[in-house]
Amino acid sequence: MKQTLRLGIDIGGTKAAYGVVNEEGQILAHGSVSSKGHADATAFVHALYHSALQQIPAAQYQQISTIGVGAPNGNYYTGCIEFAPNLEWKGVIPLAAMMEEQFKLPVKVTNDANAAAMGEMMYGAARGMKDFIMVTLGTGVGSGFVANGQLIYGHDGFAGELGHVIAVREGRMCGCGRKGCLETYTSSTGIVKTANEMIASNEKDSMLNGLVITDSKQLYEPALQGDALALEIFEFTGKILGQTLADAVAITSPEAIILFGGLAQAGDFILKPTQQYFEENLLKIYQGKIKILHSQLPENDAAILGSAAL
Amino acid sequence: MKQTLRLGIDIGGTKAAYGVVNEEGQILAHGSVSSKGHADATAFVHALYHSALQQIPAAQYQQISTIGVGAPNGNYYTGCIEFAPNLEWKGVIPLAAMMEEQFKLPVKVTNDANAAAMGEMMYGAARGMKDFIMVTLGTGVGSGFVANGQLIYGHDGFAGELGHVIAVREGRMCGCGRKGCLETYTSSTGIVKTANEMIASNEKDSMLNGLVITDSKQLYEPALQGDALALEIFEFTGKILGQTLADAVAITSPEAIILFGGLAQAGDFILKPTQQYFEENLLKIYQGKIKILHSQLPENDAAILGSAAL
Repeated sequence: MKQTLRLGIDIGGTKAAYGVVNEEGQILAHGSVSSKGHADATAFVHALYHSALQQIPAAQYQQISTIGVGAPNGNYYTGCIEFAPNLEWKGVIPLAAMMEEQFKLPVKVTNDANAAAMGEMMYGAARGMKDFIMVTLGTGVGSGFVANGQLIYGHDGFAGELGHVIAVREGRMCGCGRKGCLETYTSSTGIVKTANEMIASNEKDSMLNGLVITDSKQLYEPALQGDALALEIFEFTGKILGQTLADAVAITSPEAIILFGGLAQAGDFILKPTQQYFEENLLKIYQGKIKILHSQLPENDAAILGSAAL
Repeated sequence: MKQTLRLGIDIGGTKAAYGVVNEEGQILAHGSVSSKGHADATAFVHALYHSALQQIPAAQYQQISTIGVGAPNGNYYTGCIEFAPNLEWKGVIPLAAMMEEQFKLPVKVTNDANAAAMGEMMYGAARGMKDFIMVTLGTGVGSGFVANGQLIYGHDGFAGELGHVIAVREGRMCGCGRKGCLETYTSSTGIVKTANEMIASNEKDSMLNGLVITDSKQLYEPALQGDALALEIFEFTGKILGQTLADAVAITSPEAIILFGGLAQAGDFILKPTQQYFEENLLKIYQGKIKILHSQLPENDAAILGSAAL
């Protein structure tokens, strides 16, 4: 039986993972190539194409109608990757045009957080929603805003930089050159920084005393055992996230906010304080109406599904 | 020649002004009724209808195809005015339904700031734009966000409450019960409060010393004459507005931000510091790309034009 298939590609700093996705959001075939060590972006696209031809059965390949790519700094309007700090190809890479040339199929490009938002809307926690906010809590903090059933790309394709809303005026130095951006506190690197700062100034008993935290996962076991300092670290992080999300709600008034990514895997440790401070900081007309949900996409496949959903 | 006309109605705390608007945004006929002293909302709609029949020539009235209403707390989805503090009718008033019953025409309702955004998009400074932010700096601060050429109403119709984004954590008490909302600083009442605070603690020469400010217009003449304190009051206000607008840009990435209302009439006194702090606080990818503009709708007719544009 003939069906419409999509090829979803998730380009990250070390590899590009891809999958053939059917209309139900099932991944029928998948593969990956390194995103490093190619002579240039053209060579990368070439390697990606030949890998796909090897890994995807012909019967499926022939039914692929569109290709969606999620990539750091991917711009939906231009189809380009623009100045992505974590990729080897510098400047502006016209990825969609290069891939259309190679694959002879229509190609859409966007950034990872927007791709995740599309994935949740099509296959995940946001099915049936027309207004929601997707927040990715990874090495950085990304976001995708959906309003009236459409992603907000903005005038230039760069909307949805919630990670660079100022959460704390004159706060932590951010890689963007400004101070106090949300991602300096609520990314997986932000909470690690918070943890080490709070451990350094801690005077009470804690399983964390004397440790140097390098990964937020180190906080889970102490938190599970009720370690007060570990719980305070999550509470501080959830407070800043909850406050900032409450302000974002005043702009787009979503039905739900969906959390995804490394730090979101801390589950209720991060979700509970986020929800508490979110509700406390909401304007009254929004209180009790907006769900904060975990992503319903499987962690490993989410980016591929999201890209395919473009 | 037959043309399509719209009836635009702007309901305020003291009166409801209306006008017949043609496709070029010209007001062909207008009138008003008091919005106070009616037995109930039904009696008000009745009075409005009979006033319109009196004031609008029959040849025009017959060509009206739709009615748009801008009203405080007007909800686009429900067509209701919901708990508007400045109107005499309490609770939820099903205004669109009541007016459709009376006028036998389709009626759309929204809040004043959204109506202003539609007006700018159809007839004013945002003609041809698909992504912009409308900010009304009046007794309160309102906003309308347009993305992908559509107003963002949000899940419940209450999107666009920029006036209640927290501009200063633990800042001034707001009428909404929270602290530090943008409107406590950048509404026409907010700048009056700032002025009186800064006059009270001022130690340098100023034309404002000893005065009690009750209207932001009192600051114009001193500012024109270069009075340092008057300029500082505008700078402080523009700083808070610029910072908050910079954060809003990170969410919707607009082409322009349009300022309207009482405080916006201060012209460059408020525009210049707002632009300066806006640019300083923008994430690099947005810098130098986003215009802050004055409304191009005539102050007295803007609300009618905006409502008609619904």
